[in-house]
Amino acid sequence: MQDFESLRLRIRQFAEERDWRQFHSPKNLSMALIAEAAELVEHFQWLTEEQSENLNREKLEQVQQELADIQIYLITLADKLDVDLPEAVDKKLEINAKKYPVEKVRGLTRKYTEYE
Amino acid sequence: MQDFESLRLRIRQFAEERDWRQFHSPKNLSMALIAEAAELVEHFQWLTEEQSENLNREKLEQVQQELADIQIYLITLADKLDVDLPEAVDKKLEINAKKYPVEKVRGLTRKYTEYE
Amino acid sequence: MQDFESLRLRIRQFAEERDWRQFHSPKNLSMALIAEAAELVEHFQWLTEEQSENLNREKLEQVQQELADIQIYLITLADKLDVDLPEAVDKKLEINAKKYPVEKVRGLTRKYTEYE
Amino acid sequence: MQDFESLRLRIRQFAEERDWRQFHSPKNLSMALIAEAAELVEHFQWLTEEQSENLNREKLEQVQQELADIQIYLITLADKLDVDLPEAVDKKLEINAKKYPVEKVRGLTRKYTEYE
Repeated sequence: MQDFESLRLRIRQFAEERDWRQFHSPKNLSMALIAEAAELVEHFQWLTEEQSENLNREKLEQVQQELADIQIYLITLADKLDVDLPEAVDKKLEINAKKYPVEKVRGLTRKYTEYE
Repeated sequence: MQDFESLRLRIRQFAEERDWRQFHSPKNLSMALIAEAAELVEHFQWLTEEQSENLNREKLEQVQQELADIQIYLITLADKLDVDLPEAVDKKLEINAKKYPVEKVRGLTRKYTEYE
Repeated sequence: MQDFESLRLRIRQFAEERDWRQFHSPKNLSMALIAEAAELVEHFQWLTEEQSENLNREKLEQVQQELADIQIYLITLADKLDVDLPEAVDKKLEINAKKYPVEKVRGLTRKYTEYE
Repeated sequence: MQDFESLRLRIRQFAEERDWRQFHSPKNLSMALIAEAAELVEHFQWLTEEQSENLNREKLEQVQQELADIQIYLITLADKLDVDLPEAVDKKLEINAKKYPVEKVRGLTRKYTEYE
């Protein structure tokens, strides 16, 4: 199974072979990442929520590629900043668990509840 | 070491315990993901590229949390769509290797070369 | 009534008085603009489409401020690039009219029709 | 000269003729708007700030079209929410003037000053 570390190494090698690391300032990478996130959004913008749950095979394949693009830039940026991505997620989940205690937020999202 | 699969399971459990999966249509998750990506962009928008490479400890800690937030939504969305994220990255790297052969693109990015 | 030209002049003066034009490279302004667009998205991400059409007064006031922020950066960026924004819209509407002839696209959006 | 009101009317007519208003929930329009903002970001992501100030004619033409696309969705969304866009900008500039008094912020941006 692929894990973060093996993907990080392959992604880094990919950029090094092409001498692309010179363009990879964190500032630039944050722009590339949000541009990929927007391509994902574009797939869903005119769909109902229900339609977004029932993508046909072709659309799902395209969406899968967008997810991969986002993941690639996310790993590239974390690598550039010496951030251990799975550890960062681990820490953030602990922060979130304190911020959103089960008994207080069950079935609600902060933003959701502003409307009814 | 944390890998994708163990993070996927913890992230899913986190949402299930809070009964948040009802809000997690792919459409909504794509919006949440890009909103997190924008928080990352915000950290860098008034910095020079060089400054973005030399974040102080406090700023780096904040950026690390943004990276984690993006990763959490990316895993949530892939899980929702039954996409195997590391496999998707693997495939995309192969596609990219064909699209950008080393001998043709070394030291160039397509977009970069439009200017000089 | 306020028009583009009077807003452009006021927005420019606002930045000049604060000596902020030094930060306003088109690259940086594109980042600031998308960060504001994301704050708009955040207001809507957990709402149904129907809820997004029926905002309460407080939420509508917040959304209105986000729209203003986007408009301010859009005018700032156009000014920086010497682009006449209303003229650009005018031209783009003509391009779109040819690209999407009424008889062909009525009731459809390209992306929408990929699903059914 | 084109002003907001005449553009609003033309943009609304454009959508009505194509029966596209059915897709134009504020939620969907916020997604379309950020997708256009990302196309703008894409033009600048691998450029230095200096390069972004010196676009060649072809690139400037493309950027101009992206600015127009953002403006079109911004007007569409404001129209949908019955927000008077120039008035919203007017109000926001007054809020900003109080929030960022000249004597306090001259030559600084809040985010910029976190680094030096």
